[in-house]
Amino acid sequence: MTKRDFLAVEDWSYEEVEALLALATRVKRGEVVGGLERKVLAMVFLDPSLRTRTSFEAGMFLHGGHAVVLEPGKGSWALETEDGVVMDRDTVEHVTEAARVLGRYADALAVRAFPRGGDWPTAREDAVLRQFARHCEKPVINLESSRRHPCQELADAFTLREKLGETRGRKFVLTWAWHPKALPTAVPVSAALAAARMGMDITIAAPEGCDLDPEDVARIQSLAREAGGGRVSVVHDQADAIASADAVYAKSWGPVSLYGQPEAQRAWFDRSRGWRLTAEHMRTTRGGKGIAMHCLPVRRNVEIDDAVLDGPQSVVVDEAENRLHVQRALLLSMIGSVR
Amino acid sequence: MTKRDFLAVEDWSYEEVEALLALATRVKRGEVVGGLERKVLAMVFLDPSLRTRTSFEAGMFLHGGHAVVLEPGKGSWALETEDGVVMDRDTVEHVTEAARVLGRYADALAVRAFPRGGDWPTAREDAVLRQFARHCEKPVINLESSRRHPCQELADAFTLREKLGETRGRKFVLTWAWHPKALPTAVPVSAALAAARMGMDITIAAPEGCDLDPEDVARIQSLAREAGGGRVSVVHDQADAIASADAVYAKSWGPVSLYGQPEAQRAWFDRSRGWRLTAEHMRTTRGGKGIAMHCLPVRRNVEIDDAVLDGPQSVVVDEAENRLHVQRALLLSMIGSVR
Amino acid sequence: MTKRDFLAVEDWSYEEVEALLALATRVKRGEVVGGLERKVLAMVFLDPSLRTRTSFEAGMFLHGGHAVVLEPGKGSWALETEDGVVMDRDTVEHVTEAARVLGRYADALAVRAFPRGGDWPTAREDAVLRQFARHCEKPVINLESSRRHPCQELADAFTLREKLGETRGRKFVLTWAWHPKALPTAVPVSAALAAARMGMDITIAAPEGCDLDPEDVARIQSLAREAGGGRVSVVHDQADAIASADAVYAKSWGPVSLYGQPEAQRAWFDRSRGWRLTAEHMRTTRGGKGIAMHCLPVRRNVEIDDAVLDGPQSVVVDEAENRLHVQRALLLSMIGSVR
Repeated sequence: MTKRDFLAVEDWSYEEVEALLALATRVKRGEVVGGLERKVLAMVFLDPSLRTRTSFEAGMFLHGGHAVVLEPGKGSWALETEDGVVMDRDTVEHVTEAARVLGRYADALAVRAFPRGGDWPTAREDAVLRQFARHCEKPVINLESSRRHPCQELADAFTLREKLGETRGRKFVLTWAWHPKALPTAVPVSAALAAARMGMDITIAAPEGCDLDPEDVARIQSLAREAGGGRVSVVHDQADAIASADAVYAKSWGPVSLYGQPEAQRAWFDRSRGWRLTAEHMRTTRGGKGIAMHCLPVRRNVEIDDAVLDGPQSVVVDEAENRLHVQRALLLSMIGSVR
Repeated sequence: MTKRDFLAVEDWSYEEVEALLALATRVKRGEVVGGLERKVLAMVFLDPSLRTRTSFEAGMFLHGGHAVVLEPGKGSWALETEDGVVMDRDTVEHVTEAARVLGRYADALAVRAFPRGGDWPTAREDAVLRQFARHCEKPVINLESSRRHPCQELADAFTLREKLGETRGRKFVLTWAWHPKALPTAVPVSAALAAARMGMDITIAAPEGCDLDPEDVARIQSLAREAGGGRVSVVHDQADAIASADAVYAKSWGPVSLYGQPEAQRAWFDRSRGWRLTAEHMRTTRGGKGIAMHCLPVRRNVEIDDAVLDGPQSVVVDEAENRLHVQRALLLSMIGSVR
Repeated sequence: MTKRDFLAVEDWSYEEVEALLALATRVKRGEVVGGLERKVLAMVFLDPSLRTRTSFEAGMFLHGGHAVVLEPGKGSWALETEDGVVMDRDTVEHVTEAARVLGRYADALAVRAFPRGGDWPTAREDAVLRQFARHCEKPVINLESSRRHPCQELADAFTLREKLGETRGRKFVLTWAWHPKALPTAVPVSAALAAARMGMDITIAAPEGCDLDPEDVARIQSLAREAGGGRVSVVHDQADAIASADAVYAKSWGPVSLYGQPEAQRAWFDRSRGWRLTAEHMRTTRGGKGIAMHCLPVRRNVEIDDAVLDGPQSVVVDEAENRLHVQRALLLSMIGSVR
């Protein structure tokens, strides 16, 4: 028997994901009690977290289980992630042993490992996450890697369906936003994949040169086709893109072609300082009622204006709440039972 | 329906607080089982904690619930607390989103936010705590702010009654002590409020110039009157004040009039280095049997001598234990049920 | 009634330890359910941990209890450990109060306190651990001190018996390994004590001058005699020692005679850089099937080669898993009940 990881949503079949989302609906309605008794989830955070940590910890508890939260380099040992290395420097424990041992203490492992610099061809391999998955005998859940944030993707898909009802053919806009740092592309790609899965028409609006990984864009297109839905277009005019949108997802990311070159990214960024989701934009959405989405944490008045976040079109808090429900469904499916 | 926060004890009516203390007595006797099943408390620590964290975490567990412990800026995102700010600097998440989202994952939120410098007129507003309370749709518990430490206040009131029996008219002395740092006034004010609620005669002994916030002193006086009890006097001779006391509460604080001026506070402090609770003091209490109190952590031989802390008159450990029981009563009252 | 601590395995009688190991076998087989309902373990980590923390937290949960994890100096107050000191410097809370208070919130206390420099005569006293034990009214568990790692020792004894079956008279080799830092001797001493308890023939292989504490060596010898078993010899040729071994335990440690002198230790270390457990060594074990042990975390290709750790003779992951089972047995014995 092979174990089943959850490193990317698209590793699961369309039907399996639909079943997950259906279970999440029942979970949210309070129809599913227990199912994780005596189950332990070990969470390894190589990067900070508020929603992910709290929602998984609460989710395990709500069904009778328990989450252990580990932060290597703080409370636990600094992890080595390179294979074959002679460990005579700062790192104290190899990911191989951490993954193997945690697999003995827990029923599943969940790992957050953001990109660690270097170049994109290397970062896109998600080596740390894949090492955990390779060496741990229990299922591994991706809590955001260089390439994907699949729990966010599930929550986004769930939220789109919850808010829009019929999603097929509706207009989803992923808009770039300025940010003081060059962020990874995991969230924007996962958000677009969520919309693609929902069969929406997808517009990716970003300044020229702000490319995503071409393989990821191709994946968004093929998933959209598979879902019987929409077209995917890439445009460079923010206001124009947002007009008539049913859902606007604001998110910053660094251009993949300049990945790991902060100076070059900085210059590029400063030309596009004006990209920001405003109340004026939101008024131009379909019927002035399009929803505003973001994965959080959001930099107020930098990525999205106060007026949007505090206004009636924002669904960012519901979207964060849905993290809890889809993850409960995920945990019940992976290591629990539904009664 | 409006939610009910617990930001200060005095926001609850006299009768409600009496009911809380009565429930805490039953809890301490082991008469209350369960009542927090499937309940989640999210605790946000912007400052360190031993007692508060452990007692709340244990308290939730003992009744079937679970506490999630978050430390923004360490394991979770650095929080922005200013309203309307353009977040293009170091902070990553606004307290608005943190409060709203945690309110979706948890049944109550508990927040520790010590003063963050600046001037007293600003600090006394307890902006961070109040932002959490304003933006979170679930009840918020104050784990110590600039102005109040209401869980400590409940434990102190409980301890006074437990140790003294009839408290009305008994002598309570709050004595200042030297400390290497200028500490906030939340604890001394809360301790005096606890004694006032118990109807005790209150003497606040501190070097001249070591003022508390006048509004807080007025509050102590009015609560003492409401409780049918005692007078409140402020004196400057430590030994004289302690003589005949039934309870002596030692605590350091920085003078509110010099708040935020470390140089001025230092000069002022160095004139009063001798203020320290000693065994000799304790021998002068009523019948040589007055109790010695402190909120902990205590700096030994700086605030209180070893001989007092390790002697029979010290109740500091019982006082800390009572944090557990009053907080269990508080949680059961706010988000649980008593069977 | 006196409380019963677990500071060293040898503080418990031979029969008591046998009963513990027998219970651990039942626990590992899944025959023991519950037994720690409403029990709280407070864990104080003055040093990092992955296995210890996760296995204790999971172990408490699996039987219905809860572990609170505290890290003084990070999330909780910096601890003072010296007696009688005037606390006017950096430390905020004395271990006396921490131990007393945690004893009120929890049913047992578990403490990890590595040596803190100074000289060996001081470090070997394990002052911090003993202070916790002295001041806490509840049982205290040692999670690794300067002198002992008793939970590891239980797991090692359990693993030797599990892997070798009859252990009496079999050959156990504790081999020193080079490491960039001078490590404490708690683990090598505890490993040798585990083998001694199993009645094995013990060979300690280390470069000349790499002495352990003579009292600890004497203890290993007397325990081996008591167990009706083996001889203890100290040799200086690694390859020769490992030949025909049934179990090889690799571990680095700093020579006790140079404790606290980093310069002298460095010079000494650099002469023995070649000491490392290799696949070639493992081929010379009894029938080429001797087992390789290590407490983890292990520095790959420094202490032990990849080929050994990833090969069939390594039992390091089983050894780590057994931490969980022996600790569950320990907790059930100390603060729980076995049904």
